[in-house]
Amino acid sequence: MSKATSTDLYEVTMAQSYLREGMTGPATFSLFVRELPPDRGFLVCAGLEPVLAYLADYRVDADDVAVFASVTGQRREDLAPLLDLEFEGEVRAVPEGRVVLAGEPLLEVTAPLPQAQLVETYVLNQVSHQTAVASKCARCVLAADGHPVVDFSLRRTHGIEAGHQAARLGAMVGFAGTSNVAAAHAEGLAAVGTMAHSYVEAFGTEEDAFRAFARSRPGPVTLLVDTYDTVAGVETAARVLRELGLGPGCAVRLDSGDLGALAVRARAVLDAAGLRETRIVASGGLDEFAVDDLVRAGAPVDTFAVGTRVGVCADAPYLDSAYKLVEYDGRPVMKLSSAKVTAPGRKQVFRRPGQADLIALADERPPPGAVPLLEAVMREGRRASPRTGSAEAQKRFTADLAALPPRARAVRAPVAPRAELSPRLVSLTADVRRYTEARFTGDGHRSVHPAARPGTGSRPARREGPVGPCP
Amino acid sequence: MSKATSTDLYEVTMAQSYLREGMTGPATFSLFVRELPPDRGFLVCAGLEPVLAYLADYRVDADDVAVFASVTGQRREDLAPLLDLEFEGEVRAVPEGRVVLAGEPLLEVTAPLPQAQLVETYVLNQVSHQTAVASKCARCVLAADGHPVVDFSLRRTHGIEAGHQAARLGAMVGFAGTSNVAAAHAEGLAAVGTMAHSYVEAFGTEEDAFRAFARSRPGPVTLLVDTYDTVAGVETAARVLRELGLGPGCAVRLDSGDLGALAVRARAVLDAAGLRETRIVASGGLDEFAVDDLVRAGAPVDTFAVGTRVGVCADAPYLDSAYKLVEYDGRPVMKLSSAKVTAPGRKQVFRRPGQADLIALADERPPPGAVPLLEAVMREGRRASPRTGSAEAQKRFTADLAALPPRARAVRAPVAPRAELSPRLVSLTADVRRYTEARFTGDGHRSVHPAARPGTGSRPARREGPVGPCP
Repeated sequence: MSKATSTDLYEVTMAQSYLREGMTGPATFSLFVRELPPDRGFLVCAGLEPVLAYLADYRVDADDVAVFASVTGQRREDLAPLLDLEFEGEVRAVPEGRVVLAGEPLLEVTAPLPQAQLVETYVLNQVSHQTAVASKCARCVLAADGHPVVDFSLRRTHGIEAGHQAARLGAMVGFAGTSNVAAAHAEGLAAVGTMAHSYVEAFGTEEDAFRAFARSRPGPVTLLVDTYDTVAGVETAARVLRELGLGPGCAVRLDSGDLGALAVRARAVLDAAGLRETRIVASGGLDEFAVDDLVRAGAPVDTFAVGTRVGVCADAPYLDSAYKLVEYDGRPVMKLSSAKVTAPGRKQVFRRPGQADLIALADERPPPGAVPLLEAVMREGRRASPRTGSAEAQKRFTADLAALPPRARAVRAPVAPRAELSPRLVSLTADVRRYTEARFTGDGHRSVHPAARPGTGSRPARREGPVGPCP
Repeated sequence: MSKATSTDLYEVTMAQSYLREGMTGPATFSLFVRELPPDRGFLVCAGLEPVLAYLADYRVDADDVAVFASVTGQRREDLAPLLDLEFEGEVRAVPEGRVVLAGEPLLEVTAPLPQAQLVETYVLNQVSHQTAVASKCARCVLAADGHPVVDFSLRRTHGIEAGHQAARLGAMVGFAGTSNVAAAHAEGLAAVGTMAHSYVEAFGTEEDAFRAFARSRPGPVTLLVDTYDTVAGVETAARVLRELGLGPGCAVRLDSGDLGALAVRARAVLDAAGLRETRIVASGGLDEFAVDDLVRAGAPVDTFAVGTRVGVCADAPYLDSAYKLVEYDGRPVMKLSSAKVTAPGRKQVFRRPGQADLIALADERPPPGAVPLLEAVMREGRRASPRTGSAEAQKRFTADLAALPPRARAVRAPVAPRAELSPRLVSLTADVRRYTEARFTGDGHRSVHPAARPGTGSRPARREGPVGPCP
């Protein structure tokens, strides 16, 4: 069975119904984040690469149909119309690593309605989670203010897959390494690590442990010094490093207690031993806030190892993301209920130097000097752009970050810029709202859908001349 | 490459060193949660089944060695001692579904030191995440007070693997179904689902959408009524259901707005239409707190669909879990630094009717009427107990839940019971602490390890007669 079964049941039910009704016209779904979580001044786009891999391989095979039949209590024949269905649509998306804001589409999928619907769950899952974690990691890099940050999160992420992503996403925003062996290998990242408290405890003394650890590997070592008494541990580490002629490239790791105060004492012990080039690694419950505190206090920490809180995105473990139908068969659509109103139409985001981003309709001309964020990355179900790795994503991130207002980059109480909406998008939204509301008051059959009016729809209406209510 | 590479680098480094030093004596690691998160009165054990599957298959193959060599910059020959290493140890664990408290071991691994160390990352990852999510799901079931709860979380979990677990763990504590097709199929759960707002929008009118949806499947349907105007949506749904002769088994779903008030209005509309057997499903940002509010307010909601906040365990997305060495080669060990002191020795937890749980040493006799929570589930690397499914886990959960004090089961401001420590465990902890501290003040060589004193160690010392300091 393929990844096609990694979906919510209703995607299958709806796709079945669409096929039965002959509703296979082109649909555009727009994926965006309604509002940023507190303490976020921006988001870093992520998840696109896994999504494109999924879509390129998407195919409902016979095993999938059997699973669908089994969980819905239908016969396989009932599900036959889904067999061999592939994703043949187009994807326009903001590349991984770019900075985006609330309301800006991260990607838009345009495909025959059943296809665009069936892939919803997987696409939302990947982009939501990965964008959340990438954005958290980015804040750690900002807080570290030039000091290396490494990922130690695998033991507490939500499964192994999430741990792999945390390592990949950290690298995307500039992490210097990861403890995750499989991820380091697969993504070409630096693998980093030290020793556990258990290692020290397994030996008769801390000194025996440090000596054995140094024996076990030829290069520089990092010694964990807080198993029993941190300052005594640093003294022991200093003695061992000196006696073995080590030092440059080596480090001690502090993993508990008042990391700032202990780093000062550790630095003094190391310096007094002539180990000025031996560095200090801090770990243990760190996130961007704790790193910020240490950096602002001038703690002599050289490297920050972040784990649990970053890998699970502890303060904002999900995004208020949506994958919303914005156009079907040439007709812009929207949802009206409660606070979750969505803007209709295929969109583009224009980044304007020195100005707020502009969310516009996809066929609008870019304002002077503006750069469109959404790029065609998939056409007819095939990648239209080469796979890009962490290095390219990091370049994009670095460039976008530099262009953000300082208040958006703040670790504490950041202020997220707001995108503006183009006049045509505002006008189309008002028109579609009026049209949709009119249909409820019984005037619907006299109203003309905005897509049928020249110059207001997100693209020309498919039918010539005035038309009645949509299908 | 096998799952052996899904690990932190330091596990590999330490295992290499242990093998080099000939330190392959039996080690016991204990996995426990130091403190419960706020708003938790208990934890539900989970993650054991995936852990046992992992351990039973654990084997470092040639590809793994190549990966280890690649990420550490060593030659494959340097890593040869790890090749073909399997897990040959024993696991004693609390079965999935049972209730545990702070400080109680969820599992203990006893194996040759390199093996017990190498599996740390994966074991911690699975148990920490799954116990967190199972505990969150359990609170939803408590809040729903007898109403069915279903899982809609897949679109926002931290990856697909985490989504699968959310579905499995929900079922373990009594969820009535999941939207996750693959998980429903693999775990034998009821697959549930309705329609999306996009479905309604894709049709010309809400009524067209409802009719098409009813056409698409033979049985009862659930209609999403809040795409445009909720009350009007319920009226339309009622009309369609009546005209099609449907009703019993059918439902309307409310996904936004003031769910309590809208449920009252929806109930009134349905009742007025003679659809007293048509139910109301509520969804949209629900967690145990929101469900509790609705239930306490007497909202006429029949089924609660929980998603994002539950699947990512939003208020406590990680546990303060630890996998700590408690004994090596017959010698109980402990960590002393800062607040993270660990109790030494192999342990057992005794559940005593009407009394607090007792955390004791593994070889202590159970108090009268007490039941030991940790069971031998793996011996010599093979399962010693059959795989148990969600149904058995749910039975254990239901029984344990009933035995908890009411304040532990409270959704708001729960009070978690605290386990007591046996006098022998307290005494051993004090002895090992004294012994370990003495080694730092230079008295170590005159001190005798507690394991060598009769009646205090967690099991008889391996050597006859008095011994000197450990290895």
